[in-house]
Amino acid sequence: MSAPTPPAGADAPPPHLLGSAHHDGSELYVPAGTPALGDVVPVRFRVPAAGTERGVWVRTLRDGEPRMVEATLDAVDDDERWYVAQVPVHNPVTQYRALLDEPGGYRWLNGRGTFAREVPDAADFRLTVHPPAPEWLRETVVYQIFPDRFARSGAVRPVPDWAEPARWDDAAIGSGPSTPRQFFGGDLGGIEAHLDHLERLGVGTVYLTPFFEGRSNHRYDASSFDHVDPLLGGDAALVSLRRALAVRGMHLIGDLTTNHTGAGHEWFRRAQADATCEEASLYLWSDADPGYVSWLEHASLPKLDYRAPALASRMIDGPESVIGHWLQPPYSLDGWRIDVANMTGRHAVDDATHAVARTIRRTMTDLNPDAVLVSEHFHDAGLDLSGDGWHANMNYSAFTRPLWTWLVDPATTLGFLSLPITIPRRGGVSVVETMREFDSAIPWAVTANQWNLLGSHDTPRVRTITGDPALVEVAAGLLFTYPGTPTIFAGDEIGLTGTNGERGRGSMPWDRPDRWDARTFAVYQALIALRRGSRALREGGLRWAVVADDAFAYLRETADERVLVLIARSSWAGTRLPRHLLAPGASPENLYGGGTLAVGPDGLHLPGDGPSVQVWRLA
Amino acid sequence: MSAPTPPAGADAPPPHLLGSAHHDGSELYVPAGTPALGDVVPVRFRVPAAGTERGVWVRTLRDGEPRMVEATLDAVDDDERWYVAQVPVHNPVTQYRALLDEPGGYRWLNGRGTFAREVPDAADFRLTVHPPAPEWLRETVVYQIFPDRFARSGAVRPVPDWAEPARWDDAAIGSGPSTPRQFFGGDLGGIEAHLDHLERLGVGTVYLTPFFEGRSNHRYDASSFDHVDPLLGGDAALVSLRRALAVRGMHLIGDLTTNHTGAGHEWFRRAQADATCEEASLYLWSDADPGYVSWLEHASLPKLDYRAPALASRMIDGPESVIGHWLQPPYSLDGWRIDVANMTGRHAVDDATHAVARTIRRTMTDLNPDAVLVSEHFHDAGLDLSGDGWHANMNYSAFTRPLWTWLVDPATTLGFLSLPITIPRRGGVSVVETMREFDSAIPWAVTANQWNLLGSHDTPRVRTITGDPALVEVAAGLLFTYPGTPTIFAGDEIGLTGTNGERGRGSMPWDRPDRWDARTFAVYQALIALRRGSRALREGGLRWAVVADDAFAYLRETADERVLVLIARSSWAGTRLPRHLLAPGASPENLYGGGTLAVGPDGLHLPGDGPSVQVWRLA
Repeated sequence: MSAPTPPAGADAPPPHLLGSAHHDGSELYVPAGTPALGDVVPVRFRVPAAGTERGVWVRTLRDGEPRMVEATLDAVDDDERWYVAQVPVHNPVTQYRALLDEPGGYRWLNGRGTFAREVPDAADFRLTVHPPAPEWLRETVVYQIFPDRFARSGAVRPVPDWAEPARWDDAAIGSGPSTPRQFFGGDLGGIEAHLDHLERLGVGTVYLTPFFEGRSNHRYDASSFDHVDPLLGGDAALVSLRRALAVRGMHLIGDLTTNHTGAGHEWFRRAQADATCEEASLYLWSDADPGYVSWLEHASLPKLDYRAPALASRMIDGPESVIGHWLQPPYSLDGWRIDVANMTGRHAVDDATHAVARTIRRTMTDLNPDAVLVSEHFHDAGLDLSGDGWHANMNYSAFTRPLWTWLVDPATTLGFLSLPITIPRRGGVSVVETMREFDSAIPWAVTANQWNLLGSHDTPRVRTITGDPALVEVAAGLLFTYPGTPTIFAGDEIGLTGTNGERGRGSMPWDRPDRWDARTFAVYQALIALRRGSRALREGGLRWAVVADDAFAYLRETADERVLVLIARSSWAGTRLPRHLLAPGASPENLYGGGTLAVGPDGLHLPGDGPSVQVWRLA
Repeated sequence: MSAPTPPAGADAPPPHLLGSAHHDGSELYVPAGTPALGDVVPVRFRVPAAGTERGVWVRTLRDGEPRMVEATLDAVDDDERWYVAQVPVHNPVTQYRALLDEPGGYRWLNGRGTFAREVPDAADFRLTVHPPAPEWLRETVVYQIFPDRFARSGAVRPVPDWAEPARWDDAAIGSGPSTPRQFFGGDLGGIEAHLDHLERLGVGTVYLTPFFEGRSNHRYDASSFDHVDPLLGGDAALVSLRRALAVRGMHLIGDLTTNHTGAGHEWFRRAQADATCEEASLYLWSDADPGYVSWLEHASLPKLDYRAPALASRMIDGPESVIGHWLQPPYSLDGWRIDVANMTGRHAVDDATHAVARTIRRTMTDLNPDAVLVSEHFHDAGLDLSGDGWHANMNYSAFTRPLWTWLVDPATTLGFLSLPITIPRRGGVSVVETMREFDSAIPWAVTANQWNLLGSHDTPRVRTITGDPALVEVAAGLLFTYPGTPTIFAGDEIGLTGTNGERGRGSMPWDRPDRWDARTFAVYQALIALRRGSRALREGGLRWAVVADDAFAYLRETADERVLVLIARSSWAGTRLPRHLLAPGASPENLYGGGTLAVGPDGLHLPGDGPSVQVWRLA
């Protein structure tokens, strides 16, 4: 059955959602730190005073079988009751949800909300014994750079045979054979020369798409993993960039194709020349043309075979593997983003993805416990994110895609990633339901580190999707106030455009202030500073306060701070929130947007302006 | 957010649901037979004439990545359009769903219905290369017998030391130390003497709870797997029962505790006596009292350790294993039901459940490809039912539990299985949503064989839950017309009662016609005959036609038959279905219930009587 469609253009103030019981994995509900097997974790639930529960129970799965633990009343005031339950950590991932025993039935509370019926386990909350991403990730903002397009150092190098040189101000070619060949000549020295820009913006981490030599401008077709592409300045340029970043306290993350190499890779060339050599065991061969399995049938990208014992030690296992090599001095990468992680190690009857992820994780942790491992998975990544492998994922499914459908300019006809349709425009209820459903499948320890993004080198630019700088501000408002790690594709902060991933790979117009949206830069700057100034925005839980078609409001809360975020794509009816959200004697402190949160005896009055991003500190 | 609660006591006729696109795994939509890796399967979708789709696409997951295949129009008439898409079978389980490209957006069609937003993959349809259960299972009705309580042969045997003898007419003791000791003395000879009852009823398969010797009346605490309990008549009695069943063309299924043995098991005794013997490796030892891990902390049931190499060959792997031994002559079991399959092989960091299931399956298939393997999993079994291990599951989650909440007598206060609450009463919308959601996680090849049940030796009796023979008929109406294998707990067909599993294990009152509900027996008999007489009821797809709080209607359809089932728990508003469901020139043929489906120019008029079970053949 279809989900009910909310009435269009409803004018009545939407009801707030704070009358529902709540739980998430943040510090108000689950003690900080990673539990060990055998621990008993006190887990807390808040129920508003209006709740009718006779009691609260917590259902855990233990070796596949549910167990019920009764929660006890932990604290009560005029506004809410807090329950606590002692949850044993018996399996590496302990799923749990709460049962609200209410007159006339019961409801389950899980990561999607409350349900007056039996529900599957997919949206259960989760404790995990696997440590989350290193703490610095939650404190940072990631800045993604596609090296060919960011900046030139000015070094003069021979143009390789595959390349079609472009002038720096040329538009990116969006399709056709020239798309991967169009060569702007950005390099690592160019990046190093522009770190002031990053520092002004406020980002703390550079994520570089591949720096290995290939036969394309994107370099996802590596011909070797041993050296940095000489076109980028070679190993020395990476060492230099690494040092320059360290001076500024910035982190550096690389990008690796564990799924495939380029057809020009030294391993593949040897494999093709000699079917008996070790390298021949590394690839998946096929009877069909061109004789091997390749990424999405692109013959330039032969797929690796993780059944080969030799592959793990070369690629992912141990300090001498590709994964390990670049984590060590003098490169000292702070982590890896793994390309098409969802496909890595998966082929026909074989599914080694989880084993590959765990091996990479172990290699990285052994060398540097502060290194971060992020997967690329555009789709339903829930079953791949139990926390033992990837620390986090590029969060297209629970963030980017639904957000686009809320903010897309209906006049555009942009393709919706791999779907054969254009991005549709949806109401906020559907958008938030989607975000919650995809997020509910993963532990909070992952949620809190997900790489949220408005776009990447694989997507249209957010400026083009929304068609309006005011809506880019709305999108960025969500990005920088939402749980997870905000990730910016270089150029979004100055309003670059592009109707697909390839067209969005335009060069940074350093010398063209006319192409530079200073207002958007200021918005990004201010929102990043806002996030830096609020622990609740970086580490707090997430309580949805209002979900209407044209506006959302949510609370980000830590033990010592409560921040209210209001995001509206257009004017809406406004509504009232409970008065008690404001600390006694306090006034709402506007942290962003300049709007007024009027305080009356009947509650806090959310204004109905839009497009708008408003952030208030309430406590 | 909570699912919206439908208005209570709404009087308006509910709209029918046949305006939605539909797909399931039955023969109208997916070719019969099991595909092989590399096959391309034409998969069909029906869209009603009122649909606004511009096109239909099918999304499959291939090695973790979505691929879109365009469906083409296959057939069109005044009432509907059929699309077909060629779906490649690249992985052992191929997930797919349809995209309806509609003006103003798109909708996904998956096993739960249609959704105008992105959805996770859990409810995708599934093709699987794993063969389904043997065909005989779809044609049969299973009759579950708890041997101690079914019938005595009259053989006189010494009473064992643990037993507390009962008279045949005693009530079952529902709790306390005497519950497992109360000994009625039913045996296999008693069953054999009463096969006429089974044949009159129309059931084709006997499923026996364990027949191994133990120290309890339920025998889930086996002390050996080598012989049939002498109290049941020993091996010879099983051979005799087996032959008697074969004469009647009936099948026989056993029950095995792969998760644990009894503490009195010969393996465990040896293990306790000598920590260095092989048997000591078979169990999970613990530092905590009583020194070993046991099933739900019952010291009488020590848990087996599937990390032990010796366990597989003893228990599950090969013709000499317990699994294999009893499949062979002269016992020739037709299959196994695996006790607490959800816990088997799961402990702390170890999860060998899927490997155990696959090994059992292979052992069974090697000995007898027509043997059936059914798991006991009371909860969300979706991730355990991909088809390579268990053929089917005891379908509490997608059938029994939701059905109980629809039919429960609000005056009762029966515990809801492992939940610390009583069974709540819910409306039909919530009930069907639950059934669909749990079912949508598994391939149709499993759905079509699920063991649907109204109760078992582990639950209250359906007669007690509903409190009303008319509602038992309603429940049975659903049981025998729903996709899957109907399973009856012996005694339900004559209206036995019981407020929990233990109290429901009353003896069959062969000599007490006053305790025998002849009307209910006739209802079961008629519904089983109904099912036997309709291939659509056994093998057809499932299209929900109406879902209201007090009534459901659905279509069961094969290529040559369309059957309409209407199940009402009370009177309701009735409604109209499209006229074209009826074959041209045909009249509805009532197959059960005697009600009239009036045919007007405005459609087929579903009557609003209730409680009621009505079945019509429409084509």
